[in-house]
Amino acid sequence: MNQSHSLLELAQQARGAAAHLAGLDGAGRRRAVEEVAQALEAAAPDIVAANRADLAAAEREGISKALYARLILDQDKLQAEIAGVRNVGRLPDPVGRVEIHRELDTGLVLKKVTCPVGVLGIIFESRPDAAIQISTLAIMSGNGAILKGGRESEQSCRAIIHAVQAGLAAAGVSPAAVQLLTTREEIAELLRLDAYVDLIIPRGSNSFVRYVQENTRIPVLGHADGLCHLYVDQAADVDRAVRLAVDSKAQYPAACNAIETLLVHREIAAGFLPAAAAALRAAGVVLRVDGTARQILRTAPGLGGDADMEDATDADWSAEYLDLVLGVKVVASLEEAIAHINRYGSRHTDSIATEDPAAAAEFLSRVDSAGVYHNASTRFADGFRYGFGAEVGISTQKMPPRGPVGLDGLVTYKYFLSGSGQVVADYSGPNARPFTHRDL
Amino acid sequence: MNQSHSLLELAQQARGAAAHLAGLDGAGRRRAVEEVAQALEAAAPDIVAANRADLAAAEREGISKALYARLILDQDKLQAEIAGVRNVGRLPDPVGRVEIHRELDTGLVLKKVTCPVGVLGIIFESRPDAAIQISTLAIMSGNGAILKGGRESEQSCRAIIHAVQAGLAAAGVSPAAVQLLTTREEIAELLRLDAYVDLIIPRGSNSFVRYVQENTRIPVLGHADGLCHLYVDQAADVDRAVRLAVDSKAQYPAACNAIETLLVHREIAAGFLPAAAAALRAAGVVLRVDGTARQILRTAPGLGGDADMEDATDADWSAEYLDLVLGVKVVASLEEAIAHINRYGSRHTDSIATEDPAAAAEFLSRVDSAGVYHNASTRFADGFRYGFGAEVGISTQKMPPRGPVGLDGLVTYKYFLSGSGQVVADYSGPNARPFTHRDL
Repeated sequence: MNQSHSLLELAQQARGAAAHLAGLDGAGRRRAVEEVAQALEAAAPDIVAANRADLAAAEREGISKALYARLILDQDKLQAEIAGVRNVGRLPDPVGRVEIHRELDTGLVLKKVTCPVGVLGIIFESRPDAAIQISTLAIMSGNGAILKGGRESEQSCRAIIHAVQAGLAAAGVSPAAVQLLTTREEIAELLRLDAYVDLIIPRGSNSFVRYVQENTRIPVLGHADGLCHLYVDQAADVDRAVRLAVDSKAQYPAACNAIETLLVHREIAAGFLPAAAAALRAAGVVLRVDGTARQILRTAPGLGGDADMEDATDADWSAEYLDLVLGVKVVASLEEAIAHINRYGSRHTDSIATEDPAAAAEFLSRVDSAGVYHNASTRFADGFRYGFGAEVGISTQKMPPRGPVGLDGLVTYKYFLSGSGQVVADYSGPNARPFTHRDL
Repeated sequence: MNQSHSLLELAQQARGAAAHLAGLDGAGRRRAVEEVAQALEAAAPDIVAANRADLAAAEREGISKALYARLILDQDKLQAEIAGVRNVGRLPDPVGRVEIHRELDTGLVLKKVTCPVGVLGIIFESRPDAAIQISTLAIMSGNGAILKGGRESEQSCRAIIHAVQAGLAAAGVSPAAVQLLTTREEIAELLRLDAYVDLIIPRGSNSFVRYVQENTRIPVLGHADGLCHLYVDQAADVDRAVRLAVDSKAQYPAACNAIETLLVHREIAAGFLPAAAAALRAAGVVLRVDGTARQILRTAPGLGGDADMEDATDADWSAEYLDLVLGVKVVASLEEAIAHINRYGSRHTDSIATEDPAAAAEFLSRVDSAGVYHNASTRFADGFRYGFGAEVGISTQKMPPRGPVGLDGLVTYKYFLSGSGQVVADYSGPNARPFTHRDL
């Protein structure tokens, strides 16, 4: 009871502080972001020390190498993150953008203007850098934020949010606008606070995102893992397609924009697969191949037979390995490739390798994913690479915001109507006054 | 089992047909809309006859006058609706709008382009005209639609959708793109089809919308009833404010954009309330007043004492009468009015009557509703009046689409990336190639 009482109070405070933040103009929010950067600089020794404590504890618990690597926030990484904070402060202001400015009639003027959403509830993995990025994006977009990071990063996050709050205070903004939760129990509490929290952004596994979606009335910005594909068309350039396959899979296999399945047109399979298999094998990738691919690869010279190759089952087409494992399937047509992606994919990012513009156009038009690529690695699906400056994550839902979500995805809009006493009765019935509907 | 099997098939067919519709260009979709208009004209006698049968059945069942009025689709109304169909066909195309066109690096080009959502599931009240409007908006935005209208309008809806499908066929589009459900049981089925339906739009009571939200994984576009307010500020022009109060409440009290509560600053209450009460009473409105308002009105000349006046309780501030009943509360300050609206309102549309620009600015900025108005009737909150041509409804959720939802609210977007074999490895690490991020 005490616990939930205090979380409720914390959310109410965040809401009040967020309303104040939302009332600042762009210059005021930019100043707050700069104060946060300075506060992070001032607190750098504390943050790095807190991170070392998290790392020591993680080591004692024997967490995986990949998790450990993400947990590190040393002096160099922190400086890079602080530079990132200042970059966000230089991005175009997402708030106050006039999207419609229309005279409905003389003296009756409608404006549709972007505005902050309110309070964001963000649950993220054990990456202390995420706490910095998310807080900064929230402040720049005029939103309050209630953050819950992974347990392993707790001390780092405390030190970071302490500095963020000091920066807010220095800018004259209530530090309550950004809050940190530290216990797992508080997540369930947070999901019930639909009167105070406007948007939940869960980052993490598919099952966690689904848990959140099924346990809250608050709108959820779905940040799922990705089941991405590269389709090598019959008209692909083989060298180019091999490079794309290696980069899309192996450049950072734990990322949600890495591919999990390679689809290959049967007309190019004999020419492409041996070269691709050799290059992927050199990058440490284990292949899970269908029958046709196995037949081609078994007899290919220089591949050493069946080593590093496993038989794919149907379950592989739905598998998100997030590791150096890749499903390989030979398809009979572009049509089959598109149908496979729309059936098994997660609507994240899918790419076609082809030199045939018509095949590319067909693929881009009919694949139902947030990102559809032609001759480019799926790993480009990222807010920084798209030029958004930063991202809170990648959304695989169909309704906006879709794909990498940066500042523009953290605002909504309001309709402002200004008149001089106009009433609808005058615009109704047989002698209705007409609207002018003139864009200004 | 049989039932659910056939609904699943119907949804699959709708999805396939929607993909085809989505592949048409604007001219193709405009042509489909025109063919629908012609098919409705050709079927007019059938539609009007079907509507007469619905009306006769409704009369036998003794439905309310208001429901009966909405059910009517006579020859005149139908012609007006067909003109509305043609209007939608002339609106700016919401599909294919390029929102970002950016070079990430030489030869690597990103585009963010609007595209249809997919298949819409729309559950609406017994208004046959809604079936016409919704089908047309879906077709023009390139979406498939599965419709379920209120039971009382079943025969009218059947005749309408029959004509819509004939129009689609005449335009070379699969008629399966627009489907009609006719049994209540199918609603629960529809809500489970998250693999085939991309967006659910429930129209109806708050409790029905909430039922839908809690029983589906499909995103829901919330079309709630409205708890709208007019706040009469101390600096209001009394005559103007009286006109606004009467129009906002009585011009069409069953609409979601009609006000349910009138908030009055105490400094103007004595000057405003007697005139407002007289005008509202003349319009047939019963007032539910708080203690201060009652005291003022009791002694006001010419109001005939306590007649047509009831005491408000706290429950009145949360009540959506949708009828000729209005809560009246005297507040001590603009601050209190804003707090009241943000606490009890439904984030639909709220208006301030004032001649003080600073008070107006404060109200518009801090009231957290889709529509915030100054000296204008809340009844203007409507897609037609905003110049959207038509609307599927009004959304009270905070994330877009918010407020009246027209064509632009029925599209999402995709990111298209075209390259010549670019890989992320080249843009990473110590010798990372920089992005150009140049808008084209």
